[in-house]
Amino acid sequence: MNPDKTALVLIEFQNDFTSPGGALHDAVKGVMETTGTVPNAVKAVAAARAAGVHVVHCPISFAPGYGELDPEPYGILAGVVGTNAFVQGQWGSEIVADLTPAEGDIVIAGKRGLDAFWSSDLDFVLRQRSIETVVLAGYLTNCCVESTMRTAYEKHYEVYTLTDAVAATSQEEHDNAIKYDYPMFSKPVTVEEFADILEGADAEDTSRGY
Amino acid sequence: MNPDKTALVLIEFQNDFTSPGGALHDAVKGVMETTGTVPNAVKAVAAARAAGVHVVHCPISFAPGYGELDPEPYGILAGVVGTNAFVQGQWGSEIVADLTPAEGDIVIAGKRGLDAFWSSDLDFVLRQRSIETVVLAGYLTNCCVESTMRTAYEKHYEVYTLTDAVAATSQEEHDNAIKYDYPMFSKPVTVEEFADILEGADAEDTSRGY
Amino acid sequence: MNPDKTALVLIEFQNDFTSPGGALHDAVKGVMETTGTVPNAVKAVAAARAAGVHVVHCPISFAPGYGELDPEPYGILAGVVGTNAFVQGQWGSEIVADLTPAEGDIVIAGKRGLDAFWSSDLDFVLRQRSIETVVLAGYLTNCCVESTMRTAYEKHYEVYTLTDAVAATSQEEHDNAIKYDYPMFSKPVTVEEFADILEGADAEDTSRGY
Amino acid sequence: MNPDKTALVLIEFQNDFTSPGGALHDAVKGVMETTGTVPNAVKAVAAARAAGVHVVHCPISFAPGYGELDPEPYGILAGVVGTNAFVQGQWGSEIVADLTPAEGDIVIAGKRGLDAFWSSDLDFVLRQRSIETVVLAGYLTNCCVESTMRTAYEKHYEVYTLTDAVAATSQEEHDNAIKYDYPMFSKPVTVEEFADILEGADAEDTSRGY
Repeated sequence: MNPDKTALVLIEFQNDFTSPGGALHDAVKGVMETTGTVPNAVKAVAAARAAGVHVVHCPISFAPGYGELDPEPYGILAGVVGTNAFVQGQWGSEIVADLTPAEGDIVIAGKRGLDAFWSSDLDFVLRQRSIETVVLAGYLTNCCVESTMRTAYEKHYEVYTLTDAVAATSQEEHDNAIKYDYPMFSKPVTVEEFADILEGADAEDTSRGY
Repeated sequence: MNPDKTALVLIEFQNDFTSPGGALHDAVKGVMETTGTVPNAVKAVAAARAAGVHVVHCPISFAPGYGELDPEPYGILAGVVGTNAFVQGQWGSEIVADLTPAEGDIVIAGKRGLDAFWSSDLDFVLRQRSIETVVLAGYLTNCCVESTMRTAYEKHYEVYTLTDAVAATSQEEHDNAIKYDYPMFSKPVTVEEFADILEGADAEDTSRGY
Repeated sequence: MNPDKTALVLIEFQNDFTSPGGALHDAVKGVMETTGTVPNAVKAVAAARAAGVHVVHCPISFAPGYGELDPEPYGILAGVVGTNAFVQGQWGSEIVADLTPAEGDIVIAGKRGLDAFWSSDLDFVLRQRSIETVVLAGYLTNCCVESTMRTAYEKHYEVYTLTDAVAATSQEEHDNAIKYDYPMFSKPVTVEEFADILEGADAEDTSRGY
Repeated sequence: MNPDKTALVLIEFQNDFTSPGGALHDAVKGVMETTGTVPNAVKAVAAARAAGVHVVHCPISFAPGYGELDPEPYGILAGVVGTNAFVQGQWGSEIVADLTPAEGDIVIAGKRGLDAFWSSDLDFVLRQRSIETVVLAGYLTNCCVESTMRTAYEKHYEVYTLTDAVAATSQEEHDNAIKYDYPMFSKPVTVEEFADILEGADAEDTSRGY
């Protein structure tokens, strides 16, 4: 793993998910606790910074009133609107204090959908900075993180997923995504394994075919 | 559901998946049998044709030697290469006889990755033909069909998934994808429910938020 | 032209282009004067608002230091960096006062490249809001406006270009783009013709094939 | 220029453009003769093969009846339909004999629009093969070649355009595109300069900012 060509991509570490009082916190706090999502993400960021890996933040947000969205959404975006989550200018859409962007970090703009690539400058910036490897963490294990992983693979990035720095709304779907879907489109590792790789440990191929 | 603005999108109904002797058939035949994947897809096509819904075929294929791919793939594309599947000009990459494209059907070209949108003319054609609703069936429940569903949702198509016209390499991942992931990005229905909707039954919103 | 399905897309009406003292103003002021770019854009916005057309702003901007870009750019992005243009938080990157976004307007985020579609939420938002027709104005006639026009056509929007609400760095390239390239990918009209269409005049097809 | 990371991308060297009797040949033959489009492309291919550069063919084609297109197209796609050009299975859509794909070449599938990236597997394959530099030639100077150039730049490829291996429907628009638009998004060179670079000559940056 060449640190200068690697980006740690942090997806939606925002108060609405991460913090008591956040619009969706109660839905994810169970898995966050068993997994250690935020503390592990903090460790991943520390390891990334120490090694010179780029740190990229991908928050999702909407103008008050959700004018960017279909007035009659269905599926997961209906869930966003229905819980009044991720509104620009409100505390809930701010990145959690423990992961505040540092100088030199890249903050991605435009994320309105689930896949961090579709409506943002993520791919543009990664290409401009000659990134070849992306390491993913965040929310939800089987929603935005998984969609981003699938597209990153499609775009020929070497994709790592940090299995203990993600969280979902139930343990079962968290476990299933990591067991069945992650290895088809990424090399799943723990934060500790990621830190070890950055320090020179061999990176095993933990992906799978059929 | 307006038939003229609706497309039934058939993903990888090719001998390598569907038919005894196909490179990957043994991996999916268990779920195919419990689910009735191919016979249900045949029913869906008949209902679509009767109603005037567009039928769109999305086969995946590669030149002999897989020159389109990284010579050292990982993940699911390593699985494709490792099983010598979907090679152009071979029986395994042909669409199964029961679902042979009819005159007037659209056959999508270019699918090399998992998400049917990324490397093909699928979105181009759907937009040109003013399609607003896509109905998905095919292989694998949690791989190509799911990636295509996620991107179709991102692109603001109204997405239906045919839960009994898909199949995966294990019952557990098939069931999990349908239970947890499909409703976030689509309205899951059975083929019978799809046929009923085409005949005028109300289409319930079977999607979910968080 | 159905106003509710139409968006007036304003590209880079920012001080660095529009206003004396802006980093690139001297390069475009000649064509702006002969064309009446900004006053015509103001008229287009008034006509759009009166008719209920969506108004969409597409500014380009970069973090101080241009961390989103290749450290050794070439071509037009080298021009951006070399003139220190469009830096976030500076006056030059602000939208010109005459075209300040009003409540209900949509401000697109993420534009770092030339084509307004590639690195932003533009397509996502247009799809979500069921926009079918886009009407383009801004800078440069043959750079960002033209790239955006080409991609909008590719994505099957009905594209109009406002030939007197754009500007380039020389009259010759402005004229050439409008004469030769615009009609292949759009229906070029003046702002007055656009206003007339919104008031019910027939919209002639001013595009061309070969 | 690293040959193994470079692709010569040939756009629409098909009989309908290149050859007497082709649907659009009369429209381009004037510029082809003054420019030497096909013989120069043949030289470029020879130089590319000698150096180990990947050769990539991007033909455009449609099913008989143009079922992939809006039944009421405007702009350049109306021109395609109106001249009955590029129909699959007909001589006009075949790649011209002088540039017949050789074993090991990559033939891109799915091109239905103008920009070779939008509806095909071009980006997918270039990424999988770790291509960083693309060298463009073909038809039309200011239509498909230019759209492809603009998007290749957006995607952070290093883009070269072969100014004497392209052609347009008039000398004026050919000259204008090369003079004004090509340098913003590419490094324009002649085929001879390209061949020299492959043999070790320094590659000057012939692009421009504003």
